[in-house]
Amino acid sequence: MLIPEVNPDHLALIPIQRKRRGWQGMIVTNPNCTTIGLAMSLAPLEKQFGVEKVMMTSMQAVSGAGYPGVPTLDILGNVVPFISGEEEKVERETQKLLGKFLDESVKPGDFVVSAHCNRVPVEDGHTEAISVSLKAKASIEDLVEAWRKFRSLPQERDLPFAPKHPIIVREERDRPQPKFDLVAEHGMATVVGRVRHCPVLQFKYVALSHNTIRGAAGAALLNAELMKSEGYLD
Amino acid sequence: MLIPEVNPDHLALIPIQRKRRGWQGMIVTNPNCTTIGLAMSLAPLEKQFGVEKVMMTSMQAVSGAGYPGVPTLDILGNVVPFISGEEEKVERETQKLLGKFLDESVKPGDFVVSAHCNRVPVEDGHTEAISVSLKAKASIEDLVEAWRKFRSLPQERDLPFAPKHPIIVREERDRPQPKFDLVAEHGMATVVGRVRHCPVLQFKYVALSHNTIRGAAGAALLNAELMKSEGYLD
Amino acid sequence: MLIPEVNPDHLALIPIQRKRRGWQGMIVTNPNCTTIGLAMSLAPLEKQFGVEKVMMTSMQAVSGAGYPGVPTLDILGNVVPFISGEEEKVERETQKLLGKFLDESVKPGDFVVSAHCNRVPVEDGHTEAISVSLKAKASIEDLVEAWRKFRSLPQERDLPFAPKHPIIVREERDRPQPKFDLVAEHGMATVVGRVRHCPVLQFKYVALSHNTIRGAAGAALLNAELMKSEGYLD
Amino acid sequence: MLIPEVNPDHLALIPIQRKRRGWQGMIVTNPNCTTIGLAMSLAPLEKQFGVEKVMMTSMQAVSGAGYPGVPTLDILGNVVPFISGEEEKVERETQKLLGKFLDESVKPGDFVVSAHCNRVPVEDGHTEAISVSLKAKASIEDLVEAWRKFRSLPQERDLPFAPKHPIIVREERDRPQPKFDLVAEHGMATVVGRVRHCPVLQFKYVALSHNTIRGAAGAALLNAELMKSEGYLD
Repeated sequence: MLIPEVNPDHLALIPIQRKRRGWQGMIVTNPNCTTIGLAMSLAPLEKQFGVEKVMMTSMQAVSGAGYPGVPTLDILGNVVPFISGEEEKVERETQKLLGKFLDESVKPGDFVVSAHCNRVPVEDGHTEAISVSLKAKASIEDLVEAWRKFRSLPQERDLPFAPKHPIIVREERDRPQPKFDLVAEHGMATVVGRVRHCPVLQFKYVALSHNTIRGAAGAALLNAELMKSEGYLD
Repeated sequence: MLIPEVNPDHLALIPIQRKRRGWQGMIVTNPNCTTIGLAMSLAPLEKQFGVEKVMMTSMQAVSGAGYPGVPTLDILGNVVPFISGEEEKVERETQKLLGKFLDESVKPGDFVVSAHCNRVPVEDGHTEAISVSLKAKASIEDLVEAWRKFRSLPQERDLPFAPKHPIIVREERDRPQPKFDLVAEHGMATVVGRVRHCPVLQFKYVALSHNTIRGAAGAALLNAELMKSEGYLD
Repeated sequence: MLIPEVNPDHLALIPIQRKRRGWQGMIVTNPNCTTIGLAMSLAPLEKQFGVEKVMMTSMQAVSGAGYPGVPTLDILGNVVPFISGEEEKVERETQKLLGKFLDESVKPGDFVVSAHCNRVPVEDGHTEAISVSLKAKASIEDLVEAWRKFRSLPQERDLPFAPKHPIIVREERDRPQPKFDLVAEHGMATVVGRVRHCPVLQFKYVALSHNTIRGAAGAALLNAELMKSEGYLD
Repeated sequence: MLIPEVNPDHLALIPIQRKRRGWQGMIVTNPNCTTIGLAMSLAPLEKQFGVEKVMMTSMQAVSGAGYPGVPTLDILGNVVPFISGEEEKVERETQKLLGKFLDESVKPGDFVVSAHCNRVPVEDGHTEAISVSLKAKASIEDLVEAWRKFRSLPQERDLPFAPKHPIIVREERDRPQPKFDLVAEHGMATVVGRVRHCPVLQFKYVALSHNTIRGAAGAALLNAELMKSEGYLD
């Protein structure tokens, strides 16, 4: 499971996978489309400050359910506070993606995640209300700087589908919104905003990710580009 | 500020208010429509187990903004992750409503609340994804029982606008939903569902409250009924 | 095919059907849910003035397509100007329902109908923009009076599911609307409004009919009640 | 009032306007955003076959009402079958735009128009269900060819904002739709589809026009470009 900006080092699992199973090919997958915005926004925080606790409530678009997907009668003017298997997946995948590659396997990230997943009448774009507490001391400005400076292997290699800025921080008090921020970096960026103190954990923010571009088709393409650039597709 | 089921004892502030200000009348208000579902669902937990920490993410209906309220162009197929002043209000009001009347004043509840408030394209009904940790040990069954057994002064007095069951617990895995559960007890009940363990706090659940009935008009009427029954309107 | 208020005399086809096919039972059907509002509103006009030409453009709710029906991705924020087979059905059924029972068969109404059928993001309620020209001279007031006075066999028999007023005329300049007028007579009435002159045909008006009550379940029940009252179910 | 593709000859009114009023400037306006799709699709029919009768039912987007415009509570999941003054405007403007410049004034087109205007929960794009009868004999293929071949002064002059194909005809049975066809020619084309026989008039079709681009901002720019190219802005 791969997000090229988050865990490119996990590609080292491929030679191990090949050796163990006697494969010449490999299986590399996208995480769930809801995991991506969360993991992307946590990656620079984990690296720089260490993540301790994460609470995430999603407001997910109907396109996340594929086509034909959600019947109109179920969601028009409604909220459905349940998506089968989604919360467990988001909790587990986020720990795995932010885990470290060590001794031929991935050690899950040393933090807890709680997800509340909801479907809302939006066509594209998963909006996530996130609270987080960190291991090291940090200020709101530190978080913003960590997000803005965040670059990873796809950016260093200048891969064609890689967003120049994987994380964009908006300053307006009411952003990101699916209607305005989905197309940032052709749908490949995670857009973050409303960073503020949380009375229960330490910080609260909102993250938005394009579920069918960054969460599916674009993610698969960027995975392939990274794997090619690493020599795994030769 | 009054929710008849939650803090009827706070009406004892009226004689104090009258004395201090030389009034014959009084000022009694509804809390914010987003606070009501949260405070109603917390009231029996606070009473029985003690509340320690609360995290709440709302998905609020457009009718909460009054009329003409939210322009269609802002919300159709969109999520707006910001409502001016709402989060601070919900955090403060919840502590106040669950506070104890002591020595002629209300001591705010001894717990922290964090609110993420969002507007979604739903006509009526605020859906809230809530995580909570409690002071005393409790099981999911204990919470469900506390909610189901919850009765308060309006129920004892059999006030005309009082819901017979102030809190209704749904067993289905995808409820409550605005589309189906808003009309429970003529819009005066808080409907709770999806009670489960939370990896970060202790429990997660979903609460739904009718923002224009229980959150506004109906709340004011029930306030009046309670005040009359207590003899404050004579 | 039966609308109890429109063509109760067509039940005379049942003995003929029984005789010809050697049946003891019978087959009686509802017309299409889009036909009903149109045929109901035309029935008193046909009877009193004679209908000559009809043009109808529908804006149909998603529930008309059954469940799961229309995928959200197809209709959220969209108009689909096509419903398979619907226009032909509405044109043919309207002529048939307003036809006369004569010589052991139904002679279709002597007028032309043109239908444009569209799906819009509405949950329940088919709204229809109708233009009509009549054979006899009539004024707007005549039409309104014909609709308001319209009663038929289900009303005379006082059948339990029969609306007391099968056609309700609203005076406001922006009604009927699905949001406000669907529940008139428990969803069994056709609500008409905006009656005005048409520069191309003679009159224009808007009609609204509940597609799952009057257009399906309620229609079937009223059919059964009428058939029982006529002795066909004994 | 000007649609550059429809009535560029009406610019000859400018010198007359200047002379009569002693002006050096001029007033040139866009028609209503609902008129544009109708007049564009009728222009080649009027020129080639002569238009006799037109019936148009619109399903108009909320952005047509400006910002803040339509309150969400009015239109979410609803149809509003009334827009103040709109029907009269569409009927009058269409005749005027397709009129001939003759003897220093514009003689309105010699045909009747009837408009039914409705607001639907769509963000951008006015969909119009149109029936038309023509003076000269024509087939469906003739109409399609007339639309596809239609070019006018903005195309001949190759004006920057002019769509290369002012009218696009879609062959699919369920198009045009706002969701898919709005962006044709950067929102400057009128997209037509579902051309078929009409039992009441002669032909039926659906037209879609972008109400804020072709219907407002883009229209004003193309007007200015045409006026400059004609030497009126020197």
